[in-house]
Order: sequence, then structure tokens, then C-alpha cells
Amino acid sequence: MDAGNSIHSNIHRYYGESNPATQENFKGSKNLGYLNSAQALADYAEILIHIKEKNNAVESPIIVIGGSYGGMLAYWFRLKYPHIALGALASSAPILYFDDIMRQNKITSAISQIFKEASNKCYETIKQSWSEIDAAASRDRGLTKLSNTFKTCSELRHSSELKNYLESLYMKAAQSGQPVVQRMCESIDETPNQGEDGTLNKIFAGVVAALSDDTKCYVNPSSSLAFKWQRCSEILMPKRHGRSETMFEAVPPNQMELMTKECQSLYSVTPRPHWLTTYYGGHNMKLILKSFGSNIIFSNGLKDPFRHGGVLEDISTTIHAVTIKDGGHCEDIFPNAGTDSQWLATVTRDEYKIIQKWITQYDTDRKSSSD
Amino acid sequence: MDAGNSIHSNIHRYYGESNPATQENFKGSKNLGYLNSAQALADYAEILIHIKEKNNAVESPIIVIGGSYGGMLAYWFRLKYPHIALGALASSAPILYFDDIMRQNKITSAISQIFKEASNKCYETIKQSWSEIDAAASRDRGLTKLSNTFKTCSELRHSSELKNYLESLYMKAAQSGQPVVQRMCESIDETPNQGEDGTLNKIFAGVVAALSDDTKCYVNPSSSLAFKWQRCSEILMPKRHGRSETMFEAVPPNQMELMTKECQSLYSVTPRPHWLTTYYGGHNMKLILKSFGSNIIFSNGLKDPFRHGGVLEDISTTIHAVTIKDGGHCEDIFPNAGTDSQWLATVTRDEYKIIQKWITQYDTDRKSSSD
Repeated sequence: MDAGNSIHSNIHRYYGESNPATQENFKGSKNLGYLNSAQALADYAEILIHIKEKNNAVESPIIVIGGSYGGMLAYWFRLKYPHIALGALASSAPILYFDDIMRQNKITSAISQIFKEASNKCYETIKQSWSEIDAAASRDRGLTKLSNTFKTCSELRHSSELKNYLESLYMKAAQSGQPVVQRMCESIDETPNQGEDGTLNKIFAGVVAALSDDTKCYVNPSSSLAFKWQRCSEILMPKRHGRSETMFEAVPPNQMELMTKECQSLYSVTPRPHWLTTYYGGHNMKLILKSFGSNIIFSNGLKDPFRHGGVLEDISTTIHAVTIKDGGHCEDIFPNAGTDSQWLATVTRDEYKIIQKWITQYDTDRKSSSD
Repeated sequence: MDAGNSIHSNIHRYYGESNPATQENFKGSKNLGYLNSAQALADYAEILIHIKEKNNAVESPIIVIGGSYGGMLAYWFRLKYPHIALGALASSAPILYFDDIMRQNKITSAISQIFKEASNKCYETIKQSWSEIDAAASRDRGLTKLSNTFKTCSELRHSSELKNYLESLYMKAAQSGQPVVQRMCESIDETPNQGEDGTLNKIFAGVVAALSDDTKCYVNPSSSLAFKWQRCSEILMPKRHGRSETMFEAVPPNQMELMTKECQSLYSVTPRPHWLTTYYGGHNMKLILKSFGSNIIFSNGLKDPFRHGGVLEDISTTIHAVTIKDGGHCEDIFPNAGTDSQWLATVTRDEYKIIQKWITQYDTDRKSSSD
């Protein structure tokens, strides 16, 4: 390509600043019906074709790269638009975390384990906090008090808002690895357990420790609106039962019923637990991708609890699993400027080599097909 | 599979009797927005998964089969849902008939050639009929008279309704091969050219000859409503310029402009000439499918003018082009009970063998992946 290599970054529709749905109309399926992964992929298709045409680079190969949900999108884009993307690097993409593909609570167990290793006391405090949050919420003016204790951005309407927030905070902390968890647990452990709200004060200290200093409030429902809709309409990650212990709230037996109720009251939609695997597949991944597919790298850090939802074994000669021994979530695509570690350099060099090979093969095929 | 093989036939949404849009509301994009090929494929995905579950045959391989537009759907389904369909037989699927993939008017030239071979006089009559239809329509009470001459099902609103009908009738006749064309041309040639409407009477005689006796009227707009919408919203098959002569109306230089006007007035939508190749690909087919794809048969009859929009060469060891020497449109999947020809038997046996091979390979892979 004469113009040299170029890198483009696309923002998913309804995320970021250019958002067709304002907070007010972020409610009904009428305004949100166009917010889903398939429509986002179609956007990328249009955008990438446009960029190629604009740069006179119609024949140039495109490699799509993403991490976490973005990693799933990169993989799905290669699946659905192989004529546009020559290959995909899907970093920390828990594509097996859907429907009934993965039957165990491996991810939440792994997260719990990280907290337990940091401090057993901390693990126990978190484990017992869920029922105390519910108890506090059910007291007289409980939600108001709870909102004050946790300095929420707006008054809580239900204890589940706080619990969901905490749950995803613990998940994110565990993704970033031991240091954040350590920091949280130190704060949780060091805060004295005094009075009725003892446990809650400890938990809040953990929240503060996890986040940067310039946060003015916590639990901001509007920032997670888009993903909340997607969880209700397509990307349902069921909580699992399983034998291993976790520090998270026990999965209620009527989980789907509760979820359905919540989604119906929020958006008047009913969750579709099987849609994602119907549209993108997921069952028998190895068998399916081996015969239909090529040029994909699934990379996972072996310290990242979400690796349990990822692909950790090579599938074919062009579908690779790259595991990163001491790696966390998405570390290969967002390298910390600070930790210029040897292993990370090796991994990204390996990934680069694989991608180079795809491009070389493409050039060879292109020449022979135009002969 | 214990239950033995089973065959299921699905009807495309909005076609057939179970139709969410009645003729009255077959107008705006509000009722028709769910009518498109991608939604139809998603229906098939849901239905096929449901059938497998119901029959306790989750692991059984599925082969999708279709002809013409159905052949495109079969191919697209294998592309987009390889985790559901193990393979596809796409018969007479003109998947290269879109956007600018095929730059020449090969298909209309081939159709014209079939008519010319049947009778040069007939070819010339058709060729000059287009302007005579327009002239007749523009006379005083012209559309009423034209409607009477052609026994239309409802009064024509524009001469283009009749011209589009005739165009697709000639296309269909040429698909079914020489006998129908011969019959039409004999009627056209034998009808005397008398009076002002001489050519029109001849053309109408051709229409009658092409269709069965029990047709009470001709040009029925309601029967083609669904496809008309799809033509406006996604499946745009542009008419081509090209050096070869055709008997069809000359392509107007402002073709897209006219089409846009018509689609906007009918449905308030603007045609998207590039969408289909953006979503399903089509450019550099061989190069793309060679590296990403497997288990597809493209079959084409070499007497079918639509073969020019099809894949006529093998692409890989599992993506085959089957050409049928004396075959017409879709003849391998809809064999005439009468013509129990040797070559047709050979072709379908070959196709069967290829599909058997896919299934055997799948069984082997499945066993080794569960070891």
C-alpha cells in the first residue's frame, strides 16, 4: 500500500459523545432498537469501505483489533465480514460467556480467588455485604441513607443499582490485576467496622480506593445505559451456579424471571438468552471454526479471570490462541507505558508476526488470482 | 442421525400466505422495514435451531438448498451462519449481479440471443415494442386502452408497470429454455400486425402464450410487491450498458435517478446500490472465499442466461462450481418429472457425492474434537 499503513479507531454507536439517544429518550425500544452489535458491525463495514475508497486503497488488507467487548466485536466482524477484514486480533474476548456454552461459574470464582489471595478478611466482608445492602435498603428511608453512604450520583431507586455497580467494579478491579485489588482490600480491611453501617462503610472505602481521586460521585446510572440496554436485548451474560465458592451474591433460582421483569419495566423488552449464540455461534467453536474461518488471534492474559470465557487453544493453522503468562485484561493491545516487560514484548511481536503472515499470504493469493 | 434424514422447507417472510403486511399497508417503510434478506436469514437460523432441538438432533448437520434468489439465500446463509449450516447448494444464484461486480449486460444479451435464435422477427418486434408502449400510454386515455389491450388486473398507473412486467416475463421465459421462448415467438410472429395497436397485439399474444390458460388477467402489481420493496431497499440489480445488443429497452443514462424517484414515491426510501456487496461481499469472490469459507456448491445450467451472474469455476477443494451442459434455471433442484435426462442424473449424483463428503468430514472432525 503506497499510503503506508494506517490505523483507524471507530466508536460504537450510542457510546461516546455522538449519541442518537439522549438520556431522556434512552428508554423505549423505539429509540434503542438500532443499538446492537449487528448494527455496530454494519457501521464498521460501511466506514471501512468508505475509508478504503477515500484513500485509493480498495485492495489493501484490513486487520481489526479490539479488546474485551471490542475483542468480541473484532472476532464477530471477521466472522460476518470476511470480505472486509482480512483478519482479527480479539484480545480478552469472553466469547464463550453466553447462553449455556460455559456451564460453570469459572469467571466469578476466579475473581473471588484474586480477592481471597489479597486478603481473606476482605473477601469475607464483600461476601456478607450483599445481604447488608439489602437490609439497609429495606429500612425506613433506607435508600436515601444508602445513597448518602455511597455518595451516589443520583438517589438509588433500588438496591440492585448499587449491587450491580459494585459487582462490575470488583470485576474490573480483578481484570486490572493484583495491585488494584490489593489497594481495595487494604482500604476495606483498615476501615473500622463500627455501628449499624460498619460493613457498608468498609465497602465504600474499597470503592474510593478503586477509583481515581477526582471522582465526585459513585454509581452513575447514565454512564452504563447503553450497555444495560444491550444486556436486556442481546448480550445477556447469565450468572452461573457452580460448586466453587464466590464472593458475589448467590445466583437466585429465578434469575431469568427477575431479569425479565427488570428489562420489561426499563425498556419493555424481554431478554433473549439464545439470540447471541444463534447469530454468532459459540457452541462447538473448535469444530465450526476449524472448517469455516481463518486469520483470527484470540489472546488472553492468564491472570485475567475473563480468560475462562475465552479461547485458549489453537483451532487451526490460521486461528491462534495466544496466552500471556503474567498478563491481565487486554494487556497486549493496551500496553502500560510503565511496565515495559519482556514477556509482553515477546507476545506482541508474535502477534505481529502472525498478522504479517496473513498479509503475505493475501498478497500471494491476490497476485495468483489476478494472473 | 437416528431419526434419519429430514427435509424442511421454509417460506421467506412477507412472501406466501402468512404475511405481516397487507396490501393496504404494503407501502411505508414502517411496515416493510422487517422485510429484507438479513431478517429472512435470521428467521431461518431460529427455525433450524428450533427444529434440531425439537427432534433431539442438535449435532446433526444441516445442508441448505435453494435456487435463484433462494440460491443466493442458501449461499448467504452458509456465509453468515456457518455454525448452523454445514454446507450450501446454491443453484442458479446470480450472486455477481450486483453493484459494479459485473460490468457488462451479459445476462440481458444472453436472453436476447435466445429470442433471436427462436425468431429474428420476434426479437425485432419486442425490441421496437417499448417505444410503442410509451407512445400508446401517452395518447388520450392511453393507459386505459393499454390496460384493456393487455387485460391487466387493475388499470395501469404508468407504462413502466407494463414494461417491467414484460421484461421479467421474457427473463423467466428464457430461464425455462427454448420451448417457452419458441411458443411465445410463434404467437408473436403469427399475430397479424394490423392497425395502430399492431405491435401491442402481437406482444400480448406472446404474453398469453407464455402463461397457462387459466390466467384471467395479466400484470398483477400485488403479486410482486414484496420483491419490489426489496429491489428498492436492498436487492438492486442494475440494468447494464454494454456493447452487445439486447432486445430490452435501452438503459437510460439517469437510471439511478429514475429508480430513486420511483422508490421514494412508492416507499419513501432511497435505493442503496452498494449495501448488498457491503453486507455479503461479492468483489474478489474467489480470493475472499478461498481463504474464508468452505462447503458450497454453486450450480448453473449453461443454457440459463443467469449463469453469467453466477460462479462458474471451482474456488477451493470444498467450494465447487457445478455446470450443467444443457441445463436451464435451477434444473438440478427442480428436476422436471418428464425429462429424466441422463446428464441431469449425473449432475445431481455428483452434487450428492460432494455433500456426502462434507458430512463424512464433519463426522470425523466431530469425533476427533470430542476425544
